[in-house]
Amino acid sequence: MTEPGTLSTLSIREAGSRMRRGALASVELVEAALTRIEQTEDKVHAYVAVAAEEARAAAARADTELQAGNDRGLLHGIPIAVKDIFDWAAIRTACGSRARDGCAPAVADAEAVARLRASGAVLLGKTVTQEFAAGVVSPPARNPWGVDRVPGGSSGGSAVAVASGSCRAALGSDTGGSIRIPAAVCGVVGLKPTLGLVSTRGVYPLSWSLDTVGPLARTVEDAAVVLDALGAERPVSAPSNATSELGQDVAGLRIGIPRPYFFDRVHPQVQETINVAFGELRQLGATLVETPWAEAAAARASALIISRVESASVHETTLRDAEAAIGPDLRQRLLIGRRVPATEYVRALRARVAVRDAVARLFASHRLDALATPTVPAVAVPADRLVVEHSDGPEALGAAYTRLTMPFNATGQPALSVPCGFDESGLPVGLQLVGRPFAEATLCRIGHAYEQTTRWHLRLPPA
Amino acid sequence: MTEPGTLSTLSIREAGSRMRRGALASVELVEAALTRIEQTEDKVHAYVAVAAEEARAAAARADTELQAGNDRGLLHGIPIAVKDIFDWAAIRTACGSRARDGCAPAVADAEAVARLRASGAVLLGKTVTQEFAAGVVSPPARNPWGVDRVPGGSSGGSAVAVASGSCRAALGSDTGGSIRIPAAVCGVVGLKPTLGLVSTRGVYPLSWSLDTVGPLARTVEDAAVVLDALGAERPVSAPSNATSELGQDVAGLRIGIPRPYFFDRVHPQVQETINVAFGELRQLGATLVETPWAEAAAARASALIISRVESASVHETTLRDAEAAIGPDLRQRLLIGRRVPATEYVRALRARVAVRDAVARLFASHRLDALATPTVPAVAVPADRLVVEHSDGPEALGAAYTRLTMPFNATGQPALSVPCGFDESGLPVGLQLVGRPFAEATLCRIGHAYEQTTRWHLRLPPA
Repeated sequence: MTEPGTLSTLSIREAGSRMRRGALASVELVEAALTRIEQTEDKVHAYVAVAAEEARAAAARADTELQAGNDRGLLHGIPIAVKDIFDWAAIRTACGSRARDGCAPAVADAEAVARLRASGAVLLGKTVTQEFAAGVVSPPARNPWGVDRVPGGSSGGSAVAVASGSCRAALGSDTGGSIRIPAAVCGVVGLKPTLGLVSTRGVYPLSWSLDTVGPLARTVEDAAVVLDALGAERPVSAPSNATSELGQDVAGLRIGIPRPYFFDRVHPQVQETINVAFGELRQLGATLVETPWAEAAAARASALIISRVESASVHETTLRDAEAAIGPDLRQRLLIGRRVPATEYVRALRARVAVRDAVARLFASHRLDALATPTVPAVAVPADRLVVEHSDGPEALGAAYTRLTMPFNATGQPALSVPCGFDESGLPVGLQLVGRPFAEATLCRIGHAYEQTTRWHLRLPPA
Repeated sequence: MTEPGTLSTLSIREAGSRMRRGALASVELVEAALTRIEQTEDKVHAYVAVAAEEARAAAARADTELQAGNDRGLLHGIPIAVKDIFDWAAIRTACGSRARDGCAPAVADAEAVARLRASGAVLLGKTVTQEFAAGVVSPPARNPWGVDRVPGGSSGGSAVAVASGSCRAALGSDTGGSIRIPAAVCGVVGLKPTLGLVSTRGVYPLSWSLDTVGPLARTVEDAAVVLDALGAERPVSAPSNATSELGQDVAGLRIGIPRPYFFDRVHPQVQETINVAFGELRQLGATLVETPWAEAAAARASALIISRVESASVHETTLRDAEAAIGPDLRQRLLIGRRVPATEYVRALRARVAVRDAVARLFASHRLDALATPTVPAVAVPADRLVVEHSDGPEALGAAYTRLTMPFNATGQPALSVPCGFDESGLPVGLQLVGRPFAEATLCRIGHAYEQTTRWHLRLPPA
């Protein structure tokens, strides 16, 4: 029998391998997860609901199935948590909002949730989201690397659950960075797939033309395994094969460094950590090339306008009929969105096409396999001071945290945040790798190779 | 030799047949067209430019090619006119607007123009459009069935050119009815294809998500022949085959009558003429069924908002930098469009999806092959009184003329206007037939069968 404590850092592949040779049962894995939740939850507040009995029953079924030779694949018996904007049949999808008080339980699973279930995963619980997936703070969740710190957002609870070792992976959503930002500041892997790869059916929309669904996990391999379960067999898009290049080396791959923009107003310690990571990528044989991308700011601006308009549109009725039930941050955002003229939205939609074309030309002209940047320009900030201080003045937290991620929501490219070290106070830093559309496999190959040299995933945070 | 006068009502197929047996030359056909223009132009003002020498040279080349056995198909040597929002290489695309004063000549043909050329057609001249294709009056063009009357719009010049017999067909564009409306009030055939079938490349946009390009002609067969030349070989959409069912009978086809809406506030004489046409369709063996379509008004409303926003967006810079160069009607429309909130545009885009689904269900549940309605609720109005009088009060001309056409710009369905008679004062009435997406062939089959019983295309108007 494995000690429950050590199960908190186990990778999905290793857990599966132990289960298949009879050295571990899903029920043990789930019990360890529930124990870990008990140990950490009062400090980090990752979950809005833990489905303990349902999970225990599902784990027992998974064990029985596996013993009977009915192997559903890599996620068989693996406990996974789900951000509370995904429908989970018979549970309320509360979306972190008072405006959802009294809403009926979901009638069916979201497509992504259903696919996890079909892949044999054990659904463990629903994780904290910032209200309707809009924001980077995710109260009341806290960062396990410093419980006075924010976990990022909006998939904050999912990142915290993975970081504190209470689940093997978690589902998140990313409209402006909501998977990558909490992954970076909580020291886990976050993978935003190509726009359109994974179904968003049954996921409460924030901005339908930008919303993506993807995994947070301890390792790139685990994230790729979950993504493949989410994306497989989707008839309208490319088949997902995020795991297909794992283990191939990265010698000869070309990685662009889009300076300036992605290296402006980046905290010195983040910058230093990223520079070390660049050196490690070079040592792995990758060629790093300077590739200025003039349209980065325009890309972010277009995504910002589009998301404001579309979220105002999504919540139009609530804003009209139940404005007081919406929290002040989201309310202000929606009111701004409601005032955007249609011609400005149209201009943003067109700018978005232009920047998508521009980045495609950038990749083509430099023969790039990926871009590499910091994921966020600073580490986790204190929960009572939501601002990023720069030498030239403060920057609002939401603006700062989404500054480097949001351009790739506009372009729709896949983007991966991988832990790449810690600052002096022990807070994690994330490296963002951005790929060609539907080239998740190459992205995961790079991230996996990088991760093999660092092995951050074996560390558990203090909380 | 054929008398030039009788060439004015010749169908494309008949002209082609005479050319192929040596009884007619393209140069004769073009010379007859130029003569006809001379006879009529000072009364009807259909053209903004006549490319006489270019057309004569092209006709001579067409004759030489045909003699050499190089037959380009049904449009070989056929004179065709082009609405002045289509690019025609080396000619200015003036779009009926002072805002285009001093614009450079087009560098290349619009896709549709290039395809006509490649099909052997002889480009005769550019026809009057209402300013930037927005409006139903098309000044200074006048209706050949009553030169004190409007020709409809915005493809007014194209309808007039076809009606007065100076070309065998003409290109138009249809965003809210701009092919079908002038076709109806000028007594010719107008065919708006399925949204997306024909390339709009090189055509000045009015509202990019609604704009369609199509032919006006004397007969349904001629319109189908031109459409097939426009739509063939387009790789991103269904292959066009508008002519493929011509000559098949319509016995057993099911035609829906979407009452009310399409029969509200319709002038009594238009209503009577349409009722006679319905009787003729029944006599041809078609089954006419009452099929209320509850979403018709919502369909029109969505197209109205979308076109306002998108045209304001298209002309945003002109409105800012050269507002005075835009005519008062268009200017007011653009100013209204500029004030629409993005959330209202989004609502309209969503409503549009809903109405498209609704009409698809209507066709499915009644097993319909087409809908039949009046094209416009009134005949051509006097050019000095731009209003439609109803028993319950007046209706602005733009609203009245687009009321029955615009719902199908929202749904994207193909729609055909076929002449179906005259009112007591001798002004033409149009029957609108609306098909399933990409089912232009069935639509043309019905229109052609109907036309064979009426043969309006052999009549020339007084002017």
